[in-house]
Amino acid sequence: MKKTVLFVLACLCLAATQALARDFVLTDTTGNVSIPEWTVSAKSLGFTDGPAFSVTKTTLHGGKQEGSTRITIVTPELEVSLIPTRGMDIYEIKSGGIRFGWKSPVDEIVNPAFMNLEMRGGLGWLDGFNEMMVRCGYEWTGHPGQEQGRLMSLHGRAGNTPASKVVVAIDDKAPHAIHVKGLIKENTFKFAALETWTELTVTPGVKCVKIHDVLTNNSDYDRDYQIIYHSNFGVPILEAGAKVLIPVQEISPFNDYAKKGLADWQTYLGPTKGYDEMVFNIRAYAGKDGWTPVVLRNKAGDHGIAVRYDAAELPVLTLWKNTDTLRQGYVTGIEPGTSYAYPRQIERKQGRVKSLAPGASQAFDVEYWPLTTGDEVAGFAKRVEAVAAGRTPKVVAVPMAKE
Amino acid sequence: MKKTVLFVLACLCLAATQALARDFVLTDTTGNVSIPEWTVSAKSLGFTDGPAFSVTKTTLHGGKQEGSTRITIVTPELEVSLIPTRGMDIYEIKSGGIRFGWKSPVDEIVNPAFMNLEMRGGLGWLDGFNEMMVRCGYEWTGHPGQEQGRLMSLHGRAGNTPASKVVVAIDDKAPHAIHVKGLIKENTFKFAALETWTELTVTPGVKCVKIHDVLTNNSDYDRDYQIIYHSNFGVPILEAGAKVLIPVQEISPFNDYAKKGLADWQTYLGPTKGYDEMVFNIRAYAGKDGWTPVVLRNKAGDHGIAVRYDAAELPVLTLWKNTDTLRQGYVTGIEPGTSYAYPRQIERKQGRVKSLAPGASQAFDVEYWPLTTGDEVAGFAKRVEAVAAGRTPKVVAVPMAKE
Amino acid sequence: MKKTVLFVLACLCLAATQALARDFVLTDTTGNVSIPEWTVSAKSLGFTDGPAFSVTKTTLHGGKQEGSTRITIVTPELEVSLIPTRGMDIYEIKSGGIRFGWKSPVDEIVNPAFMNLEMRGGLGWLDGFNEMMVRCGYEWTGHPGQEQGRLMSLHGRAGNTPASKVVVAIDDKAPHAIHVKGLIKENTFKFAALETWTELTVTPGVKCVKIHDVLTNNSDYDRDYQIIYHSNFGVPILEAGAKVLIPVQEISPFNDYAKKGLADWQTYLGPTKGYDEMVFNIRAYAGKDGWTPVVLRNKAGDHGIAVRYDAAELPVLTLWKNTDTLRQGYVTGIEPGTSYAYPRQIERKQGRVKSLAPGASQAFDVEYWPLTTGDEVAGFAKRVEAVAAGRTPKVVAVPMAKE
Repeated sequence: MKKTVLFVLACLCLAATQALARDFVLTDTTGNVSIPEWTVSAKSLGFTDGPAFSVTKTTLHGGKQEGSTRITIVTPELEVSLIPTRGMDIYEIKSGGIRFGWKSPVDEIVNPAFMNLEMRGGLGWLDGFNEMMVRCGYEWTGHPGQEQGRLMSLHGRAGNTPASKVVVAIDDKAPHAIHVKGLIKENTFKFAALETWTELTVTPGVKCVKIHDVLTNNSDYDRDYQIIYHSNFGVPILEAGAKVLIPVQEISPFNDYAKKGLADWQTYLGPTKGYDEMVFNIRAYAGKDGWTPVVLRNKAGDHGIAVRYDAAELPVLTLWKNTDTLRQGYVTGIEPGTSYAYPRQIERKQGRVKSLAPGASQAFDVEYWPLTTGDEVAGFAKRVEAVAAGRTPKVVAVPMAKE
Repeated sequence: MKKTVLFVLACLCLAATQALARDFVLTDTTGNVSIPEWTVSAKSLGFTDGPAFSVTKTTLHGGKQEGSTRITIVTPELEVSLIPTRGMDIYEIKSGGIRFGWKSPVDEIVNPAFMNLEMRGGLGWLDGFNEMMVRCGYEWTGHPGQEQGRLMSLHGRAGNTPASKVVVAIDDKAPHAIHVKGLIKENTFKFAALETWTELTVTPGVKCVKIHDVLTNNSDYDRDYQIIYHSNFGVPILEAGAKVLIPVQEISPFNDYAKKGLADWQTYLGPTKGYDEMVFNIRAYAGKDGWTPVVLRNKAGDHGIAVRYDAAELPVLTLWKNTDTLRQGYVTGIEPGTSYAYPRQIERKQGRVKSLAPGASQAFDVEYWPLTTGDEVAGFAKRVEAVAAGRTPKVVAVPMAKE
Repeated sequence: MKKTVLFVLACLCLAATQALARDFVLTDTTGNVSIPEWTVSAKSLGFTDGPAFSVTKTTLHGGKQEGSTRITIVTPELEVSLIPTRGMDIYEIKSGGIRFGWKSPVDEIVNPAFMNLEMRGGLGWLDGFNEMMVRCGYEWTGHPGQEQGRLMSLHGRAGNTPASKVVVAIDDKAPHAIHVKGLIKENTFKFAALETWTELTVTPGVKCVKIHDVLTNNSDYDRDYQIIYHSNFGVPILEAGAKVLIPVQEISPFNDYAKKGLADWQTYLGPTKGYDEMVFNIRAYAGKDGWTPVVLRNKAGDHGIAVRYDAAELPVLTLWKNTDTLRQGYVTGIEPGTSYAYPRQIERKQGRVKSLAPGASQAFDVEYWPLTTGDEVAGFAKRVEAVAAGRTPKVVAVPMAKE
């Protein structure tokens, strides 16, 4: 029964995008539009045929968040915050009294004007990293690398690119799905003309946050791209005994250090001093719909998060277990992508760097389903099991590459 | 006859600078002045003795152009946009329905706060490059180089320096020439105290945009400087069969790749996939007035642009032919300078790095004459011929340096 | 007699911090507070039981100071300017018609958004350096160095970090001491969770600017820190024949170039072309109160500045003599710190890199006493003598490290 409900809701979630909508342009470089403070609600729009909701944009001030912007969507089920000035990243989701996201030592929403991605040998990205979901791409991703004498800094630039256009579109028809669209440009003369229309959809009445991004190569040349949807969760889901459910086809350790965690990849330690991070490279099965479901749940199994992604678009999955101390950043990453986290030169050698033809586009679809009851967790867990279908994961003991 | 007219106009263009003017201070770090939106017109000033004009300042928003500013001058003949926050660069000129400038994959006017000039091994400048004219200097210019273990990023910093003072001065007397002056500071403790007062003059009734910059070395030491006035034009002037007219004294290819284009240096291909760029180093003759005229014209010769520069101030000329595809950036550069585009260490070895004594100043003068009729093109073409005076260019087949 | 007065005043200066105060929150990233223009005065607060004072915050515009902020405190004795957007650095102090600070070729208060600390091989900091006091730390300090393949740029990042919280607290009780507090965060995932509450106190009626900073390691790991309070003075104190009085225990040249200046370390040349800088490493005695007093005075000894610091917190002192030409930056630095100015890897090898345990804090206390009469200079000079107590400094002729 529950599965059916979820399926119906998922369909709603998809269908809503197509409905007629009224558009609110909050940022537009072409028309020189930028609205610093803005709000709209079901009430202000005169909607009486569905649940209450609101969408609010705020400009942030002080420290390194001076000039950052934040959009918050509130529905009866969800509160979702995203950051137009940081690649439309999702800062956090709240649902049923639970916060989905994590606590980084970086506690401000850093304006990219204050970032230097190339510092610390290409680790500058860590100065701003605190989001529930960061787009790591699209020109490159992964650990810092060098190609042709040029540094490719950690996880690319999209997540530190302020959106050129931001549009909130709200469906005219109930249930009045809310779409927040943002245009992220990675344009460099001679190097890149990659533009991504990101879209985040929340439908009042549905406990789902849906991402539908379309990357387009606007150049006249084939262009490489890489993307990792770096999706991160800490307490309260993450705890000693928390578990991640993945329909694994094949799993291997990212590096030698992760070898010793391979047997226990599915369970989590509590905050552990000196743990740092263990990373696993995973190929997962997809269901008949082509989507791979993943569930991260707390020990008791009474809350968690489901991450679903289109496995044709995002063929590999990085599992990042950073169960170090709370103040160090106790967090795990469920990271569907086209690449693992190796530097681009390694990903290229191993054949995972994708290419887009001139004018071609590629969509990426990911969904986040906050699970706030034991039933919801169990329901999604069954979907993972159904996709795994009892098949035994292939466990490869040796890392596929030296970092 | 036409030559006479042009000559008279040129004189007017020069003389106007000296007239009494009313000054509008739009930016002044000393007085803490910054006016985000501003406009003035012949009408608002009560001028009835000359053509209509307006000058408008706008602050730009969204994406990486958040906080950029733009000043637009409109006269009966011209619309000129310049960018105070990017070294007072000229973004574009419009005249007679023709746009003079080019279309870069970088389609925003990037605030330098979002630039990292040192990225991609010193090619970060390409993240913002889309102007009709960029000042490439003054501390250094050219391709990225290293001296004493320090990276000198592509084309220096002036073009990514926000102006410290911006003054619009409008002559009291008809024809009410409009001067936009901007102060660009390249000040670094121990390294540089180079300040440049840039001045762009447009005279209502005259189809000329005049640049008169004065670089001053405010330090107590001799200081090196380099400058290239990187002036760039794409469609509609640039097309298959377009031609550039230069009174060449000597021409050589910048590198081995350009060797094969040497014979055809004067004509242009249409947008050509895989062409990338060919660059030629040119020494040109100057007329009796000391100025070198250059004409770039379309195939039919019914429109084009004339670039004139004081050859004593700017002794060398780089011709940059980047006739790659339209979306890659189909563009050619007419680039008078003190240096070619080699890294500074090469320019130094070859004796082209200039020096300014303590307190000394150096002026640079460049003019842009949009040519919107066949007569105008022919008139200026004759001036180029007159300077060349039938002398045969010396063609050197071998690049003067390895890049 | 004079010493007693100064001592009493110093006590007042310390005690004031504890009084009940009214707080004005000017910046707060948590509450999204940022007040661009603000002022308060004894009069506006209804204080009639003490001297007049005012505190004003201004936002700066134009050039690279766009978005910088400045707080100015005015009392009968002092005018103090500090820069919240640049690590709460002190820009200048004025007292008795004398300016305490210096004149750098960098004449704007640069917004860190326009800085690239890693440029010029890690010397980017020089693009913004013009303050009377810059905090050089806390993650690292000193000349650019490399550890584990990562560049540590000149003098760290605190001085180019915009404050996350800024609070002006004014004591309810006369003499209504004014405290400007600012929170500087150096937070990088995996690397640093160092937060510093800076506090600058000025008490109306007292000619003293007191710094009391508390650095806290918010991580769960021991973290290294380094700090240099880079305190800089030029004309009119600095002049030919000016003198610095330090109760030196041991002094050595920073490098080979400084060897030839060792004998004359205590006196200054006038502006001297080609001098560049000589740097001396000093261990100084502290008085019974644990503080080391230093006096810099002009030739006549009728004005100067006293710098006092807690020698247990800041065990070493760098004396930076940069008596080059006026326009090059004629300046001397009195720089108490935990480290000398060698790169971190050298400081580490020599045992001067400090460490903070998880959750631990470390205070740093420095005072600036403008001396505007011969009596004041003489009074403080006696305090230096008293601490030196006639002991002969140990002069070490050889630098302790190769840079």
